[in-house]
Amino acid sequence: MAAERLVVIGGDAAGMSAASQARRRRDATDLEIVAFERGHFTSYAACGIPYWVGGLVEDEQQLVSRDPETFRNKFQVDVRLRHEVTGIDLDRREVVARDLENGGTEVREHFDQLVYAAGAVPITPDWARTDADGVFGVQTLDDGAALLAWLDSDPRPERAVVVGGGYIGVEMAEAMIQRGLSVSLVERSPEPMSTVDPDMGALVRKALCGLGLDVRSGVSVTGLETRDGRVSAVVTEDGTLPADVVVLGLGVRPNTALAAEAGLPIGPTGGIRVDLRMRVVDVPGVWAAGDCVESVHRVSGQPVYVPLGTHANKQGRVAGINIGGGYATFAGVVGTAVTRVCELEVGRTGLREAEATAAGFEFVSVTVESTNRAGYYPGARPMTVKLIAERRSGRLLGAQIVGWSEAAKRIDVLAVAIWNRMTVDEMSGLDLGYAPPYAPVWDPVLVAARKAVDAIR
Amino acid sequence: MAAERLVVIGGDAAGMSAASQARRRRDATDLEIVAFERGHFTSYAACGIPYWVGGLVEDEQQLVSRDPETFRNKFQVDVRLRHEVTGIDLDRREVVARDLENGGTEVREHFDQLVYAAGAVPITPDWARTDADGVFGVQTLDDGAALLAWLDSDPRPERAVVVGGGYIGVEMAEAMIQRGLSVSLVERSPEPMSTVDPDMGALVRKALCGLGLDVRSGVSVTGLETRDGRVSAVVTEDGTLPADVVVLGLGVRPNTALAAEAGLPIGPTGGIRVDLRMRVVDVPGVWAAGDCVESVHRVSGQPVYVPLGTHANKQGRVAGINIGGGYATFAGVVGTAVTRVCELEVGRTGLREAEATAAGFEFVSVTVESTNRAGYYPGARPMTVKLIAERRSGRLLGAQIVGWSEAAKRIDVLAVAIWNRMTVDEMSGLDLGYAPPYAPVWDPVLVAARKAVDAIR
Repeated sequence: MAAERLVVIGGDAAGMSAASQARRRRDATDLEIVAFERGHFTSYAACGIPYWVGGLVEDEQQLVSRDPETFRNKFQVDVRLRHEVTGIDLDRREVVARDLENGGTEVREHFDQLVYAAGAVPITPDWARTDADGVFGVQTLDDGAALLAWLDSDPRPERAVVVGGGYIGVEMAEAMIQRGLSVSLVERSPEPMSTVDPDMGALVRKALCGLGLDVRSGVSVTGLETRDGRVSAVVTEDGTLPADVVVLGLGVRPNTALAAEAGLPIGPTGGIRVDLRMRVVDVPGVWAAGDCVESVHRVSGQPVYVPLGTHANKQGRVAGINIGGGYATFAGVVGTAVTRVCELEVGRTGLREAEATAAGFEFVSVTVESTNRAGYYPGARPMTVKLIAERRSGRLLGAQIVGWSEAAKRIDVLAVAIWNRMTVDEMSGLDLGYAPPYAPVWDPVLVAARKAVDAIR
Repeated sequence: MAAERLVVIGGDAAGMSAASQARRRRDATDLEIVAFERGHFTSYAACGIPYWVGGLVEDEQQLVSRDPETFRNKFQVDVRLRHEVTGIDLDRREVVARDLENGGTEVREHFDQLVYAAGAVPITPDWARTDADGVFGVQTLDDGAALLAWLDSDPRPERAVVVGGGYIGVEMAEAMIQRGLSVSLVERSPEPMSTVDPDMGALVRKALCGLGLDVRSGVSVTGLETRDGRVSAVVTEDGTLPADVVVLGLGVRPNTALAAEAGLPIGPTGGIRVDLRMRVVDVPGVWAAGDCVESVHRVSGQPVYVPLGTHANKQGRVAGINIGGGYATFAGVVGTAVTRVCELEVGRTGLREAEATAAGFEFVSVTVESTNRAGYYPGARPMTVKLIAERRSGRLLGAQIVGWSEAAKRIDVLAVAIWNRMTVDEMSGLDLGYAPPYAPVWDPVLVAARKAVDAIR
């Protein structure tokens, strides 16, 4: 019997990163590892679902970065698929789970260390709770498979309504277009992609409309219509949209029901509170990582909830290194995100205007129009860069980019600048790569920084 | 008559940026501006010449960002094209020039402020000094026009030899391929692209060979053969290469003959010594900017000579703001450069290994193979990232990237990290944009940083 026992709740990025990092540092005689996963897969890329549905990725197996057999054989992790954890008993240090494949048999497993990585649950408004067929979420590979089966069913769906204009919403809208459906995108906020400021969101809306997407922003959904047990329309404040298929992309919230029940501390964002090492605050031997925790925003200093695979992987890794006896910390987030929709590229980092105001900053905003390449170089496309900088200090607080090619990932330059608390004045001197295929001689980031310097004065 | 008189030597990026920035702050009653330019153009993009020669850019006028008429009319700059400056008299504060179009008439102009922005001169070894036709440099638009005329002449050139495997060399090699010629590239160093380490240069060589380019690295040229007044071959230590056209891309050196004669201080790199504000050290009222000056490398702390349009523009701007009565400084360089050859992308920043050693650093190097997109996303292509980090501290000293698509410009992330003296440990936590079309869930930069952390321990 091993010296210690680690139980992991959730077999996706965060949980399995923790398991494999712990294993790298402690062998099976020292640390036994059991992982419970409700679904059929481990370590899969949920963010790849839109591309699978859209046909760019052929096989769901491509989205699985490490399968259960690899974890079992290579990492000696006792992976229990289709096991739903139903309780955590901190006093007895036990996890209680149901075997979904085996008539719900109850399993109890002792732990010395526990990693809570239960991820997120989709936000599902009351109107979306229906028994009718044809309404889909986009969280698990099973969701993707069900949607794909529906799209191939008879009668073949022709009209899709995607509800929610954030990343997953616009990506799913693109997937439906790629499948040949006519698509409406309904978003409650004034503009889609509300993680960017409304002025940048307006650029996104115009671009998406130009791509043949029927964008209805500033519109709330109030209900669904069904016919013969199938969805037939989405009812909005602004009229009824016929629909053979409805995709819900309304975002997610931390999956903390079990955690709260067990008494783990929940923060103001709804995520579990953890320290730098991903230890659950004030609960010895219990760790949490991924889409169920809150993180510190390095600009506002406030807790934020940012469910992204990139953070889940890092946080799980940090927890696992620490469980393994190493030392690692999660340094927080600056709110970087990128997406592509039918070639339109959107990137953001730091705080958007509303967030900066909420955090207490006074700031100036500047927006510049430039191009991704030298203007004379073939394939030069327009690119809009917006910077938000603190008044007086000039510290960069946030940045957003909308463009058409090789645009979004440039946000990383600004993310690193924000990470290092750079001012726009210093940024305007940055030594960025220049060659005609990559940028005008004044990189758009530099042009924006110069403009911000002038605005602050 | 204006209160002061500014004379600018050199009508390209640095000189004309200085002129226009000075003008923005001081009108023509306060500051008279005269600019001498030996050639036919102002403010042109020499770095665009390969794309013009290759046919990607149709018209040389596209490479001119601002023409002399604009400077004359909009900025009230007295631009004197085809005027070669022959002397600077610091005691009398006069510039002496010859009007090349007018039988060499001598002109003398008084200055209160002088901007020396004479740029660079191509490095031309003795063997390349020939009266034979068919040998071309790539520095001015006139060079480009002459080469294009030659490529269209009868008999039509079919075999090109490009001498010099740096940025301009590989870009010109691509241009010749695009024009349908068979091309050999000869480089004295063991690998082409000697601004990256030899191991990364080897990747470049293999890739270029795969693209149909005959790369001969580690080979010195010893002479040219000519026939009937035309070049017919390039003679190397390793055999004779038949050639109907020879392109010289051996780099440039600072054009400081006049400056040295006038007594301006020349630094160890051969460039003019300037202070933070681009004032020539110890010479009141005289400024210098662009390809004729040396800069401070922010990592080594040493002076370096980095002739790039991006620096020339910034330096000229800084000089002009200061001449205009404002305050601006040039913060130095970190050695960032990017290029693309037939889709192969190369980026570098900071110090390469030999430079780090010369600067006195001890370091570790790590190289990782990754992809530009999630592995399952269509169009994912391999990408190699190399990091050089200081021993013990883990401070990032240099980085190099070789890849096939959306690869090179990622070097900017590393350039900003170096600028801010980040350690690889801190870098491994960076919040970089993640979505399947842009990166694997662990961005290649993060994977490399993690590996460097392990290597330092």
